[in-house]
Amino acid sequence: MSQARRLVLGSSLSIGGSHTSVWRHPRYWSDASINIDYFVSAARKAEEGKLDFIFVGDSLYVNDHTAPHLINRLEPLTLLSVVAGATSRIGLVGTLSTTYHEPFHVARLFGSLDHISRGRAAWNVVTTALPGTAENFGRDSHLEHDQRYRVATEFLDVVKGLWDSWEEGAFLRDKSSGVYFDASKLHTLNYKGEHFSVRGPLSMERTPQGRPIIVQAGSSDAGKDFAARHAEIVFTHQPSIEEAKRFYHDIKERAAKLGRNPNELLVLPGISTIVADSAAQAQQKQDEIDALIDIDEALKELERYLDPAAIARIDLDEQLAPHLDGLLTDGYQAETERIAQLVHKENLTLRGLALRMSTRAGHNPFVGTAEHVADAIQQWFEAEAVDGFIVSSGPIVPEGLHHFVDQVVPILQGRGLYHTDYRAETLRGQLGLPVPPNRYAQATT
Amino acid sequence: MSQARRLVLGSSLSIGGSHTSVWRHPRYWSDASINIDYFVSAARKAEEGKLDFIFVGDSLYVNDHTAPHLINRLEPLTLLSVVAGATSRIGLVGTLSTTYHEPFHVARLFGSLDHISRGRAAWNVVTTALPGTAENFGRDSHLEHDQRYRVATEFLDVVKGLWDSWEEGAFLRDKSSGVYFDASKLHTLNYKGEHFSVRGPLSMERTPQGRPIIVQAGSSDAGKDFAARHAEIVFTHQPSIEEAKRFYHDIKERAAKLGRNPNELLVLPGISTIVADSAAQAQQKQDEIDALIDIDEALKELERYLDPAAIARIDLDEQLAPHLDGLLTDGYQAETERIAQLVHKENLTLRGLALRMSTRAGHNPFVGTAEHVADAIQQWFEAEAVDGFIVSSGPIVPEGLHHFVDQVVPILQGRGLYHTDYRAETLRGQLGLPVPPNRYAQATT
Ligand SMILES: Cc1cc2nc3c(=O)[nH]c(=O)nc-3n(C[C@H](O)[C@H](O)[C@H](O)COP(=O)(O)O)c2cc1C
Ligand SMILES: Cc1cc2nc3c(=O)[nH]c(=O)nc-3n(C[C@H](O)[C@H](O)[C@H](O)COP(=O)(O)O)c2cc1C
Repeated sequence: MSQARRLVLGSSLSIGGSHTSVWRHPRYWSDASINIDYFVSAARKAEEGKLDFIFVGDSLYVNDHTAPHLINRLEPLTLLSVVAGATSRIGLVGTLSTTYHEPFHVARLFGSLDHISRGRAAWNVVTTALPGTAENFGRDSHLEHDQRYRVATEFLDVVKGLWDSWEEGAFLRDKSSGVYFDASKLHTLNYKGEHFSVRGPLSMERTPQGRPIIVQAGSSDAGKDFAARHAEIVFTHQPSIEEAKRFYHDIKERAAKLGRNPNELLVLPGISTIVADSAAQAQQKQDEIDALIDIDEALKELERYLDPAAIARIDLDEQLAPHLDGLLTDGYQAETERIAQLVHKENLTLRGLALRMSTRAGHNPFVGTAEHVADAIQQWFEAEAVDGFIVSSGPIVPEGLHHFVDQVVPILQGRGLYHTDYRAETLRGQLGLPVPPNRYAQATT
Repeated sequence: MSQARRLVLGSSLSIGGSHTSVWRHPRYWSDASINIDYFVSAARKAEEGKLDFIFVGDSLYVNDHTAPHLINRLEPLTLLSVVAGATSRIGLVGTLSTTYHEPFHVARLFGSLDHISRGRAAWNVVTTALPGTAENFGRDSHLEHDQRYRVATEFLDVVKGLWDSWEEGAFLRDKSSGVYFDASKLHTLNYKGEHFSVRGPLSMERTPQGRPIIVQAGSSDAGKDFAARHAEIVFTHQPSIEEAKRFYHDIKERAAKLGRNPNELLVLPGISTIVADSAAQAQQKQDEIDALIDIDEALKELERYLDPAAIARIDLDEQLAPHLDGLLTDGYQAETERIAQLVHKENLTLRGLALRMSTRAGHNPFVGTAEHVADAIQQWFEAEAVDGFIVSSGPIVPEGLHHFVDQVVPILQGRGLYHTDYRAETLRGQLGLPVPPNRYAQATT
């Protein structure tokens, strides 16, 4: 590796993770997901800690089983635009689905966010896991898993093409000659593919970052291939440093095989930290949070991965392994495979699995003193298991973020592991990701 | 009319109107359309003048003939979200097309803007006039004019239904009982119509205004019927007080026939004002602006209304009337009818029409001293030709807005015609428009 690796830290303002009942904690800001004041104040706190970016998730389908923190939420692009105006340096990562959107709209939304924020926009590309989503968009059925990634691949080709509509410096706005733009720098895409047909050009000049950064969060084989081709950041969940290492090297290799520089594809697992003055106090806080879990809520949450009708037929305290075939949905492939392994390895019952998935209790290496959390971060980073992390603003929202910024970040900075100020004006500059050249631009050598 | 009528004034930050070359004026902010600083500073100026709202237009298709101020622009919802964060009382009207969007996304975007702005969102519903738009969205052809309005009518039924998904007070967030929401106040739309099929519910609680305000800008018969059914504000272009009066009474009658209170449908023509210390100076400024017109630009602009191929075949200085059949497009029906009348009445050549459409020179009653402009506004309002106006931030952007706020508004306030402070926290409150009841709510009498 020619350049020194940089530790990357983002903050996920998307609330909740998998713990569905933590909103009942006395210090939890329980209407945060719909309250713009939460997002603005949390983003400012994250910027105070010089975190690289904030992340906002999304979904396009809810029903009365949806977890509290997901059922009532702001739309990501409007939310991030407000935050863009209220901050000056922190990156802004928003989620949007390629299965239920039009490339032309998406290119405009993220392009506009990049202009508005002066180069801080990133798009978390998701393919949408919940099949019910189809019914909100007049579709007969949800596309099958790998087909979703094929559509996504074409979607990205179109959006990137639209972002190249205008070369750098195309807009002259010369008042004396009356020339507003240089027509030789305007390019009409005329894309005709299997899933999309889009003429272009985009009604927007090249954005400050050349184009917004592409983030991706699928962990299946199809998801990793997609990431290797299109993404510059990969989000993931990794339960242990060993698994993280395998994932990290897998992703980097896939990118290298496609001729990409693996340093230009950053791997960032999501973590939830609990920081306290002693290990015992941290554990006590974890127990306090876990005690809030309601088995019904935990079961509802499991419906992301297990067929609801099947769940209803199984006894809570029966062994789950014999029932597993046909029980798992195809929404989150990497996660359902992990669930299957877990059930077999630990002989879990339905109740056991539900609680386990809702708490991940006792399995979180990022619970302890600030020193301990900083050590774990350093260890994972230096072992080349990760390029950094997306740190949840919870589990108790927003104090998780505050403790992280106030207590953990200064330790990492003190060790020379983390920057003490932003390095650049744009998120690309900050992350050391290159500005992609416009496909039409003449190389000037 | 039981209640005193209130004069309504909005500011259109959508740049340019029909004058395509005014950006060449030395004082014109020529990159305004892509510069968020313009929108934020103009919105703050408008708020200083207690204007009721700002308006941002949109389009989904450009080519190398598109006018300079339209070819390179920010996306309206992201733009307005930044403005929401930078202002506190002024209303935020954004444009989105029902022909090229999904109701579920649109309900979320405007619902989110209403939450973020604490009740200041309004949606300018357009059906999209430019046929080329189809090619940016993989469609074989653009829908025919009246069909676009039929789709729009259903679109609005769906979006309004989604906005009623949750009754007022549905989210309890009761930490002690663990009840996050009251399931009896959640309603799944299950809409199945001719053009749309949308399950719901929306993943967002009822917005501060009950729902965003609906604005509409079609002037054709189908457009006026649509407005009478769905809109709370109608934008329009009216060249004279007589025509404005006819339009005003036509719209109000259509609303009344549908059983609506005609006071709850406001009619606001767009105007461009030029203010100077004397009538002669104002005229001189108008001439200075008109002198910038480039006949090629003016011809390009005509392509909104006239078939480009046909334009190319006609001599610039030939009488246009004999060629008119088959020349007019169906995009902007009311406007093309007006063009046909004009060509016949004034025996216009192609050049004459192009210049006439680009300047509207000599026909603008809102050019003169501040006193004169205030008089004209008062006259149109008191004659019941309008409920108010959308005032352009141009023609010289942004000084048109500054002159209006600094010089015209104080005169209107001095006459007791215009408010000196906002009356309410929400745009509905400010405009005297009622909060629509949730369709599922039990009447509590
Ligand atoms: C850290 C992280 C964040 C995610 N955020 C979202 C999200 O906001 N919205 C969404 O629909 N899916 C989200 N996902 C789900 C992924 O996009 C993807 O659908 C899921 O991981 C299944 O993909 P796979 O089958 O390729 O593993 C997220 C996944 C991870 C790991
Ligand atoms: C004041 C005003 C503003 C408008 N703004 C837009 C706009 O931003 N985007 C758009 O596509 N159409 C816009 N229109 C066009 C109308 O939405 C509509 O397409 C056009 O008036 C033709 O409709 P009609 O055939 O019913 O007259 C505007 C029209 C008026 C009068």
